Amino acid sequence: MGPNTLSVPMALFGENRNRLVESVKADVNTPAGSIILLQGGGDQGVCSGDSSDNGPLFRQESYFHWCFGVLEPDFFGAIDVASGKSTLYQPRLDEDYAIFMGHVPTLMEVKERYRVDEVIFLDEMPDHLRSVALVFRPNLLILEGLNTDSKKISRSASFDGMSEFEIDRKLLHPHIAECRVVKSSYELDVLRYASKISCLAHMEVMRTIKPGMAEYQAEATFLHHVYFYGGARHVCYTCIAASGPNGAIQHYGHAGAANNRIVHEDDMLLFDFGAEYYCYTSDITCSFPASGKFTKNQSIVYNAVYRANRAVLAACKPGVMWTDMHLLANKVVLEDLHSAGVLKGNVSDMMDACLMGRVFQPLGMGHLLGLDIHDVGGYLDGNPERSQLPGLKYLRTARALKAGMVLTIEPGCYFIDYLLDSALADPELNQFLVKEKINEFRGSGGVRIEDVVAITESGTEVFSKVPRTVQEIEDWIGGDNSFMENWK
Amino acid sequence: MGPNTLSVPMALFGENRNRLVESVKADVNTPAGSIILLQGGGDQGVCSGDSSDNGPLFRQESYFHWCFGVLEPDFFGAIDVASGKSTLYQPRLDEDYAIFMGHVPTLMEVKERYRVDEVIFLDEMPDHLRSVALVFRPNLLILEGLNTDSKKISRSASFDGMSEFEIDRKLLHPHIAECRVVKSSYELDVLRYASKISCLAHMEVMRTIKPGMAEYQAEATFLHHVYFYGGARHVCYTCIAASGPNGAIQHYGHAGAANNRIVHEDDMLLFDFGAEYYCYTSDITCSFPASGKFTKNQSIVYNAVYRANRAVLAACKPGVMWTDMHLLANKVVLEDLHSAGVLKGNVSDMMDACLMGRVFQPLGMGHLLGLDIHDVGGYLDGNPERSQLPGLKYLRTARALKAGMVLTIEPGCYFIDYLLDSALADPELNQFLVKEKINEFRGSGGVRIEDVVAITESGTEVFSKVPRTVQEIEDWIGGDNSFMENWK
Ligand SMILES: [Mn+2]
Ligand SMILES: [Mn+2]
Repeated sequence: MGPNTLSVPMALFGENRNRLVESVKADVNTPAGSIILLQGGGDQGVCSGDSSDNGPLFRQESYFHWCFGVLEPDFFGAIDVASGKSTLYQPRLDEDYAIFMGHVPTLMEVKERYRVDEVIFLDEMPDHLRSVALVFRPNLLILEGLNTDSKKISRSASFDGMSEFEIDRKLLHPHIAECRVVKSSYELDVLRYASKISCLAHMEVMRTIKPGMAEYQAEATFLHHVYFYGGARHVCYTCIAASGPNGAIQHYGHAGAANNRIVHEDDMLLFDFGAEYYCYTSDITCSFPASGKFTKNQSIVYNAVYRANRAVLAACKPGVMWTDMHLLANKVVLEDLHSAGVLKGNVSDMMDACLMGRVFQPLGMGHLLGLDIHDVGGYLDGNPERSQLPGLKYLRTARALKAGMVLTIEPGCYFIDYLLDSALADPELNQFLVKEKINEFRGSGGVRIEDVVAITESGTEVFSKVPRTVQEIEDWIGGDNSFMENWK
Repeated sequence: MGPNTLSVPMALFGENRNRLVESVKADVNTPAGSIILLQGGGDQGVCSGDSSDNGPLFRQESYFHWCFGVLEPDFFGAIDVASGKSTLYQPRLDEDYAIFMGHVPTLMEVKERYRVDEVIFLDEMPDHLRSVALVFRPNLLILEGLNTDSKKISRSASFDGMSEFEIDRKLLHPHIAECRVVKSSYELDVLRYASKISCLAHMEVMRTIKPGMAEYQAEATFLHHVYFYGGARHVCYTCIAASGPNGAIQHYGHAGAANNRIVHEDDMLLFDFGAEYYCYTSDITCSFPASGKFTKNQSIVYNAVYRANRAVLAACKPGVMWTDMHLLANKVVLEDLHSAGVLKGNVSDMMDACLMGRVFQPLGMGHLLGLDIHDVGGYLDGNPERSQLPGLKYLRTARALKAGMVLTIEPGCYFIDYLLDSALADPELNQFLVKEKINEFRGSGGVRIEDVVAITESGTEVFSKVPRTVQEIEDWIGGDNSFMENWK
């Protein structure tokens, strides 16, 4: 991208295509003469009903990007299953394009840039597809599958003349989604970089934001740092720059709650920010006191969540069930709230009553991460189904961990009035709650400590390195650079 | 928004609604029992075929925003023409919203925030509409009209039960578009502020960017400055951070040409950036040498464009035709290129041959600006039609100027190889071209000097105050703060 930024090798996408072809080929249901055909994202404009001539900056659709790494809109791409040969179909641009949009790359230039076997104009695609497969009616493997986070169906390729081909919409999706779940070492390099630049920006934010500033000034600082220094033009989700009570709002920062509260001296801050680099994402949350020094109650909640984060980190390795990690994090937080006198009774009874999921952490403890912030493949057929229990039902996967997965570990503890009130009125739950202690935490928002980790053969590699202990955070905000000196 | 940012009074939108009602009421074709009904932008997600659960940050649809100033998605709004009474219809949000998105504002809170006469749940809208108009079948005035820049049709309101109403899709559009053309003093305040924070950010960029940096570091600097200091979360168009030859590409900066060239010592830079504040936009271009000092050839082109910019600025006032301003700018640039020996022959012959539009400025010299960067109303019925001449055909309006209009004045001079080659091969045009001199400028990109101005009763008010003369630019980049000291 620019000075001192990561150069992404196109071999990343070549290897992805090879992995996909191997997987599809090994499937006994794949007919001879099959071609994988994907349609890239288009520049059709805005969905919000706006008729203006300015839409959001184009960002490639993730499945297409995973296969081809193409940054421009309106391409199609094909992979012949038998030969592994890859073809990009480039839109034919007119002369005005050169004036308004810049140099129109030739077919050869596109081929050089993206390292595919062939580049053809899009209007010649139907004829070309017939010639590639060497059969009279090639079988097109088209992507169609449910995204279990958005509940949307992935875009299916569609073009004039499609009816002259055999079309299979079932076979491709589980193969490509499963391939995306396990990251190659090329992909790990980019994901590691996206987290690295995000961490440096988080650390800048920790030293920039002061009481009296608006929350959005933290967002502005983060966005600037990852772009100016890291070359990351996009973030993969709207920045959550929550102060005080807003820390309890899971998706704070959207247009209706636009990071515009003024930060107070006694606030906890919860900043959930992640850069995206070459469409590979990061997702890191730092929680710290606006004053730079933890109060006693702030450190009770913080340390409970920190201990949960580290307990999960220590336990993660191939074969471990993600649901167990969620429950482990819940249990550690409950233990610490119990020790601090915020809860009473027996922790295993609290677990049986789903106290975390119903009150203090009504969402999942972490998720797969890759080209999407909530990456695909969480509930593919053949894997455990979604639990219907509180908290667990929002967990974005229930799978066993596998080397090459990248996930966030993001336990949290939130004080949500609406849930606290319900719990205090519920005899099954209020037996555990020390009302007067709980009231001390009302309005304080919440704490989330979110790291990005890769699962290795033996355990984990942590991609997000930021000050995490109370001491590290206080030292860093206080101007002590020793954390940075050990940073790599 | 935050510390030291502009507070936007909701009276702005109340006055807009009153202006619209007056205009519609005065139309003899408006039936009794008419209600203006607009549908706000929705959060339906991304159009690019992406099935992920993260879309772009919501930004309100401009017509709806102009009437109601509502920042959240999925609202409808109505104005009863007879009484002027305004109603917002708020989506009914469930309990989970409080956990994930934050406090659900009550109807009363929404009414207080947006200062409308009434707020009703959206699912009660059909019944409410019937009660408002005091007639059995109210006549709904629905927005439907062509955006002459995007060629898209504005979003029409649509809801279950619509068939029980009379529907008029013709009447509203010309009234509301014309109202948007003439800005109120409330609107001018916000537009002035958007340009002010954009100028300060441009000035920061001028001092930050150095040879060896990537173009996008200018974009990052601008975005940070308008957000961190000005509270502007959005820009209204993709930043054009063009260095050297890229300055000739009108919409440089898009995903396929992503501001990622390294800046060279001898480059001219062309930075076209504008912040958006409460959906009101700015659009300012600064051109300056990367070295901080103009070379002789750089100052020839720069001064030609600067003189054109000032000639237009001096000539603008109510009654003046915008097409004449375009041609005036063209003529001044031609005169200066002729004086510098880049062109030969007679300037009026060059004008007759459309030399600027066919070669050096193949686009319009400026456009209306407001809630959209290319604001609506440029070619409403009853106004002059679009010219088909080179250059002029891209002019986004051909209207006579009116007090209260806000426009950009953006003459330019570009060296586009493709157009230069065509012109050199064209006997009608090559008689004017001094080939060896022109070749000195090839690859240098272009210069654009773009200001935002409001038309007043007697002339203009310039909203964009940045170093503009060669001397001012060299002084400012060189560290002399005197320009800032006189800035207000
Ligand atoms: Mn996350
Ligand atoms: Mn402009």
